Amino acid sequence: MNHARLERQIGFIVEIDRLKRVMRQTLLTDRCRHENSAEHSWHIALAALVLAEYAEPPDLDLPRVVKMLLVHDLVEIDAGDTYCYDAEARRGQLARERQAAERVFGQLPADQAAELQAAWEEFEARESPEALFAAALDRLQPVLNNFYSGGAMWRKHGIRRQQVERRIAPLQTGAPVLWRYASGLLAEAVARGILADEDADALASS
Amino acid sequence: MNHARLERQIGFIVEIDRLKRVMRQTLLTDRCRHENSAEHSWHIALAALVLAEYAEPPDLDLPRVVKMLLVHDLVEIDAGDTYCYDAEARRGQLARERQAAERVFGQLPADQAAELQAAWEEFEARESPEALFAAALDRLQPVLNNFYSGGAMWRKHGIRRQQVERRIAPLQTGAPVLWRYASGLLAEAVARGILADEDADALASS
Repeated sequence: MNHARLERQIGFIVEIDRLKRVMRQTLLTDRCRHENSAEHSWHIALAALVLAEYAEPPDLDLPRVVKMLLVHDLVEIDAGDTYCYDAEARRGQLARERQAAERVFGQLPADQAAELQAAWEEFEARESPEALFAAALDRLQPVLNNFYSGGAMWRKHGIRRQQVERRIAPLQTGAPVLWRYASGLLAEAVARGILADEDADALASS
Repeated sequence: MNHARLERQIGFIVEIDRLKRVMRQTLLTDRCRHENSAEHSWHIALAALVLAEYAEPPDLDLPRVVKMLLVHDLVEIDAGDTYCYDAEARRGQLARERQAAERVFGQLPADQAAELQAAWEEFEARESPEALFAAALDRLQPVLNNFYSGGAMWRKHGIRRQQVERRIAPLQTGAPVLWRYASGLLAEAVARGILADEDADALASS
């Protein structure tokens, strides 16, 4: 056994415990608290198994999608979660995240650091079918949680339907069936008065 | 598109959000709070990718391990987390969990309900190499978190080294190298005074 190798691997596993403390804007469906990035990653990795038939093409490399989803937010350990509708915070995000990737993945033995950082880079590049499907799930789940928590965060931040539509655009190529489903959910949210339309006044925050 | 099928799949994905509210005895490494079962599932699914080389045999079906780990705690949505050292609470646990499996997985379309419930059953049976490795990771991670949080939960509940050793026994067959590593960590914990030995008086709780 190579003790130094195992020590690095264990060190990485202990380190990533910190992702459980990175909070997202999204609420749990019962609105009791905000969601963290670790449990979000679990949620969409399992969603990938359940919704794989809607990927384009449906026979893509599913374990590769799951691997990407399990690591896709690790950079937030250093870089924090950036709210997707906060244009100010998003500036410099990529540079912060790249630096974080070097440090966080760099705790692993070199071969595994390269492998998992490559998975993260592939996710970020959003070019392969696997990355497009992974991105689709990463965009779908907040829509579900926002919808089922009564649009609390949409209303709090005065988000409009058209902003969410732009946000979920990766679904169009990554999983068209899910894109149609999510679009229908947004229409329903507007009809229920929990998401504002561009033309309408913003809903009162609550 | 089969709307009823997709509705069931989405219903399941919304339902399992509740696992984020099931709390475990284990603390996060910085002791700020208890860990929940959703983020725990993420942690060990990613640990499976990092530690796969220590599985027996090392060329087992890793995606199958990951699938088991992603679903292994879903029954807790109904049955709750049962503290592994609480013999009283463990009575009746299997019956509760089996009933929960029927309901939770039963929200999916029949083919997927059968597939994911089979993954859970395989995990519970602990017979296949994949299930043994999955169980090993499920036992290793709390040891890491307990060790790195200064043994807070071991001390609070007056847990002895020999109890933890019995608990991590699945590591012996599922991942012998990790079993030796974990045993060394327990010896170190005793030496540091954060885990009591059978022969010694229990450590003062703190």
